[in-house]
Formats: sequence, C-alpha cells, structure tokens
Amino acid sequence: MNAAEVLRRIGEERPLVHHITNYVTVNLVANVTLSTGSLPVMAHAREEVGEMASLASALVLNIGTLDPGQIDAMLLAGERANERGIPVVLDPVGAGATSLRTKTAERLLSELEVSAVCGNAGEVATLAGLSAEVRGVESLSGDAREAAEKAAGTLGVTVAATGETDYVSDGASTLAVENGHPLMGRIVGSGCASTSVVGCFAAVGGADAETVAGALALFGLAGEIAAEGAGGPGTFEPRLLDALAELSADPDRLGGGIRVRELAHDR
Amino acid sequence: MNAAEVLRRIGEERPLVHHITNYVTVNLVANVTLSTGSLPVMAHAREEVGEMASLASALVLNIGTLDPGQIDAMLLAGERANERGIPVVLDPVGAGATSLRTKTAERLLSELEVSAVCGNAGEVATLAGLSAEVRGVESLSGDAREAAEKAAGTLGVTVAATGETDYVSDGASTLAVENGHPLMGRIVGSGCASTSVVGCFAAVGGADAETVAGALALFGLAGEIAAEGAGGPGTFEPRLLDALAELSADPDRLGGGIRVRELAHDR
Amino acid sequence: MNAAEVLRRIGEERPLVHHITNYVTVNLVANVTLSTGSLPVMAHAREEVGEMASLASALVLNIGTLDPGQIDAMLLAGERANERGIPVVLDPVGAGATSLRTKTAERLLSELEVSAVCGNAGEVATLAGLSAEVRGVESLSGDAREAAEKAAGTLGVTVAATGETDYVSDGASTLAVENGHPLMGRIVGSGCASTSVVGCFAAVGGADAETVAGALALFGLAGEIAAEGAGGPGTFEPRLLDALAELSADPDRLGGGIRVRELAHDR
Repeated sequence: MNAAEVLRRIGEERPLVHHITNYVTVNLVANVTLSTGSLPVMAHAREEVGEMASLASALVLNIGTLDPGQIDAMLLAGERANERGIPVVLDPVGAGATSLRTKTAERLLSELEVSAVCGNAGEVATLAGLSAEVRGVESLSGDAREAAEKAAGTLGVTVAATGETDYVSDGASTLAVENGHPLMGRIVGSGCASTSVVGCFAAVGGADAETVAGALALFGLAGEIAAEGAGGPGTFEPRLLDALAELSADPDRLGGGIRVRELAHDR
Repeated sequence: MNAAEVLRRIGEERPLVHHITNYVTVNLVANVTLSTGSLPVMAHAREEVGEMASLASALVLNIGTLDPGQIDAMLLAGERANERGIPVVLDPVGAGATSLRTKTAERLLSELEVSAVCGNAGEVATLAGLSAEVRGVESLSGDAREAAEKAAGTLGVTVAATGETDYVSDGASTLAVENGHPLMGRIVGSGCASTSVVGCFAAVGGADAETVAGALALFGLAGEIAAEGAGGPGTFEPRLLDALAELSADPDRLGGGIRVRELAHDR
Repeated sequence: MNAAEVLRRIGEERPLVHHITNYVTVNLVANVTLSTGSLPVMAHAREEVGEMASLASALVLNIGTLDPGQIDAMLLAGERANERGIPVVLDPVGAGATSLRTKTAERLLSELEVSAVCGNAGEVATLAGLSAEVRGVESLSGDAREAAEKAAGTLGVTVAATGETDYVSDGASTLAVENGHPLMGRIVGSGCASTSVVGCFAAVGGADAETVAGALALFGLAGEIAAEGAGGPGTFEPRLLDALAELSADPDRLGGGIRVRELAHDR
C-alpha cells in the first residue's frame, strides 16, 4: 500500500501500536507513533502484555535495553500477536554488539512469526550471518543493501537496513529509500523511531516491502523538512515531530516528496 | 486555595514531590514539576520508597508502565505517605484497558487513602463502574462530567476527569476547567503531566476540588500560551514548559486567564 | 588534557561510553553524549553489562533511580571496566537523601576503582562526611569547594561538586569552573548530563582535574550559548544540545569561552 493511502487508513482507524521497547528512546517513539495518527501504548509486565497485544493492531519489539524479564514479555506478547495475526515488527538494537542482544534477536525470530525487521546495516548484517562492526548500538560498517537482501532471504521476512539510504527487501525485490537528512543520525533514537513508523504502517497496511519503504520514506521526508531551519540536533528533534504530524495529517502533501526506487533484482 | 496563592506557596516552600511513575513520560513530568517551582524526585525501589516518601510533601502514583515490583513500591510509599498525612495523587493510566491496570488502580484506592484521582474520561469511568472505551491509554468515549461525579461519590475522593473540558468533583460540587488547547492531546504525557501539577498543588494546598481545578487550569493556560507560534506537537512541548515556568514564577499573571466554572449541584 | 584537544580526540576516536543510569534523564544524557561526538550505549542487564563494558572506552554509573538489580549490574560492569583500565565516572544522585543511595555510592567507591565523582554540593559533601542538606536529588546547601576538596582527599579520586560555580579537586589542586547559566538548574538532568560529558572526556583524556574541569566548562559554555534567545527551560534544553554539538564539532571555537581558574592550594 502506498504511503498516502496508509496514512489515510491510520487517520480513520487510529490503530493501537503496542510497544515493548527500551527506556532510552521510549518517549520519542511514543510521540512519533502519535504524530502518525496512531495510538501508542507501552506495556511490559508479563501480567498484561498478552492482554495489551490482544487490543493492539501491531506489536513493536525493540531490544535496546534488554533484560530477561523483557524477553519473556516479548515472547508472550508476540505469541498473542501471532495468534491474532497482527504484524510484529522487530528492531534488533545492538545485535552484533553483545551476545545477549544477538541471541535474543535470533530467538525472537525463531520462536515468533516476525513480519518485518528494521535495524541498521550492522545489526541486519549480524542477523544475516555477514560480518559487521557494531559499536554499542551504532553500525560502523557494512553494506546495507547486501545485508537487507541476505537477511530477507535467510529469515523469510521483510527486512529494512537503515542508513544514509535505507534498503528494504522481501527476498525477491529490493527498494531503496532515499529520503532522509544527516541530522537524523545526530539524534538518539531515529532508528527506533523509524521502526515505530513501520509498526504504525504495518498496523493498517501489512509489512510488505512497499509499505515498509513507505514508512521509512515518510519519516525521512519529515527529517528533510525538519532540518530546514534547525540549529542542530536538539532543535531538529521537535521539528521532526512537527513535520511528521503535518505530513500525516495531510497525506496529499507526500506525493512529490517520496523518493523510493525499485532496484534490479539480479544485482 | 486559588491557583495564584498555591503557586506563591510552592515558590516559598519548594515542596518535594515523590513520583512512582511510568518510564514513557517520566522526563516530561519531572520537568513539569520543576517548572512549577516544586522539586521532583523519582524513586521506585522497595528499599527506599518509604524513606523518600518521608521526605516528600506529596506522592504521585502513575500506573502507566506497571509491573508487580512497582505495585509493591506504590503500596509501601503510599502507606508511609498516609502515616505522614501528605497527599497521594493517583493517575490510573490505562485503567479499563487491561485487568492489571484496572485491578491495581482499585487496589491502590482500597488499601491507601488517596487524596485525588486524575485520569481521562474512560479511566475515571472505569473506576466509577460506568462503561467506557479505553484503547491502550487513550479514552475514546465517555461523559467526563458524569464519570468524575460518579467516581468522586463512589470513591469518596476528589476526582478529575480530563479532556477538552476537565471536570473536577468532590462528590458534592463540580468544577469545569475550560483552559487548554487541542495540541495538548497531540503530545504523549499531557495527562501524566497535569496529574503531576495536581501533585505539586496538593503538596502545599491539599486536594480539595478548588485546588485540583486550579492546577489543571494553570496547566491548560500554559498550553494555550504555548500553542501560540508552535509549529506542531514537537515544538509545542518545550514551549509548554516555558509557559508553565513563566506563569509559575509570576502568579499575578494568572488572574484573567484562569477559566474555572462551578456547575450546578443537581444536575 | 585541555578541552579542545579532548574534543579533537573524541571526533577521531568516537569512543563508546557505556551508561548504567536512571530512566528520568537517560534520553538527555544519551543525546548529550552523542552531541560531543561520542557514542552512547545504555545496557543494564547482568547478562550483558560485562560484555558491553568490554567494548566501551568509559563507564558512567548514575544512581538516580536505583534498585538492587542495577547495583549488581554496576558492580559487574565496574569490575570489568577496572580490569580493562577504562575510566569509571560516578554520579551519586541523591546520596544524602536516602540510605540506599548513600550506601550504594559508598559501596561503589569502596568496591570499584572509580576515576571521578561528579555530583552536586550536597551529594559530594555527604560522601566527604560533611553535613549537607539534600532534598530528593537537589542540593540545598553546602560549600561546594570544601566538599570537593574534602571528598577528593578522603576518596583519593578526582571530585567535581557542581553548582553555580563548579569545583574540581584531585586532592592536591582545585579548579573553579565559572561557565554556566542559571537555566541549567531549571531543567531536569543538567547534573546527569554534565557527568556524561565528563565520561566522554575521560574516555579519551583520562580523569585528571584539568580534563574533568574542561568537560564541565564545555557544558557550561554550551549552556551560556543556549540561553541566548531561549524562552525558558523548555526551549533551553534543545538549544543546549545544539550548542554542545556545534562547539564539539569545532573545538577551535572554545578558546576564549572557557573560564577555568586554578585556586590556591592552601586555602
């Protein structure tokens, strides 16, 4: 589904997007979710994650500040999401940096039916079994396109590897998203936030490559608009929410701004 | 106590307001608390909540990201607050959405002497035993006035049901707070933040309906001022803190801006 | 090492700064870390803190929202940091307010080799065995210089006591940092944030008094720049990140702005 159509549906349906996520960027991703017109809810207790996932239209799992209790909660919520057939979007924050993160991302992918994986090039390369350098939660190297295509093929899900250009692959075709601005890499949580936008889009449009790419393009376009007149990363962030809210409320404005290219299949 | 008088007292006493709250909006509520002139402190460990509550002038319990350890902490801190006679303000975030949240709000109200409850219409309706639709942490329906009056009567505490108009009832009389701006519903945490302002007001002025309404009116007025010139929800939020700090530092400016009406008792 | 030199090194090395920190100000400190050119990572699970500390160039321990699991994690990460010889910077948030915080700060100082302690006057005075008034996490009294000098002598580490003027002592000499702006005390987390800047500086420059003072001076100078044109604490905070990023990217601009004085030894 194209981005404008997804946004119209979000505006009509106001999907609830359940997050089990890290405490570093949780406020930003909640505001990003709300700015798309979706309703964010964060809940992590084993005692309620199944029930909350039962109310939601999508589940976002973000392993940015993982601990064992959270892993249990992710599995419980994910099982419920799978039973109900709602999309599960995974952000493997820091996979490749520590074995807890790498193994947990692998476990979630193995025990749950994940609909889409969104990470940086290093994280995605790690899950694809390619060599990668991940320092903490930053990717320092890696071919994002190769990582996305390889991971999509291996894992059998839609995979987005984000970076200067984002690559989205479903194993068969690959899309390149060219929206974005360097300031997005200068704030903490732009990766987490883009994953949440993917979660919002998946809630109404599913997690095929076109829909995932549309989410990333919307977020990147908001970044481009926000950068105009920003004095640095600090003032950029609130402007990013403004731009995202404005575009989401008026999807007709998207048209000319979205820059998604389909790449040749046989690379 | 009227809002200007409360703010003067806050400026003199600099009350410590102990929060046990969710990790989604914790930074915002801490900054909101500080902007009123009060001192925020967040502490959740069973090992220290009693001691922290002993130092505080009010306790704010917000169940937005609940788990069992936090429930224990809330009960411990609340007991200490009750022993000392300081006000306890409860925000039943998501009551009505999951049974953990509904039951915990009920348990806190049953085991503690809560001074005021502040929630959205759906959450308050749930606690009043009325039917309500709560999607995640958003109220999608419900008559806020009826919810506030019924809950105040049933629970025997001051109850605020927030929304486009906020209604504050002590069971006998009901006040309508007409300050506010639609952008407040477009940021995550404006409900949590208004509850924290109520906590700050209660710390020096108690939790009668007039004081609670004054807190909500102050916060709503800050929202009106912040909305002027804001480019959307992102740039609105920092401006909201600016406006709150400015009004709090100069309570004389409040006068004409506060819009609180007393409603007829026999509705 | 002087501040400009430290910033050049940070730009070249992009050090990973591992934080085990509170959930109130975690987003701010992560953005502050990134704005210096360093890479922040937050990880608190016992299962990964040792591995994460093995990847890092400095470890920041901030006890602002302490619980027993976090204490274990701090000890594990700190031991690994000590084995590797990377600096450990401690922010004893709320020491003096509750016994859990005071005892934990003391325990961390006793069981780990801490390189630098950064706190407000009351927290530092508490660790120095001086009388102090700490209300929640705010220092309400105390002679910051005396506290820093006494604590540095007693603990045998570099100590910074922050306030209107920051004092940094290594037990032998004391530096006074006169950069800063009153708005820094009006936002939640400026203390936590300054400690993280010290962590970033220590990652490449070590934790001697000059380097620690340089970090605080940079942060204070960013505050001075940010205050120009800010409408209050809300709009000040994003501008603080802008200013910090701008100064960090162009260390030549620091020169004239840094105001650090060496004080007489025999006071």
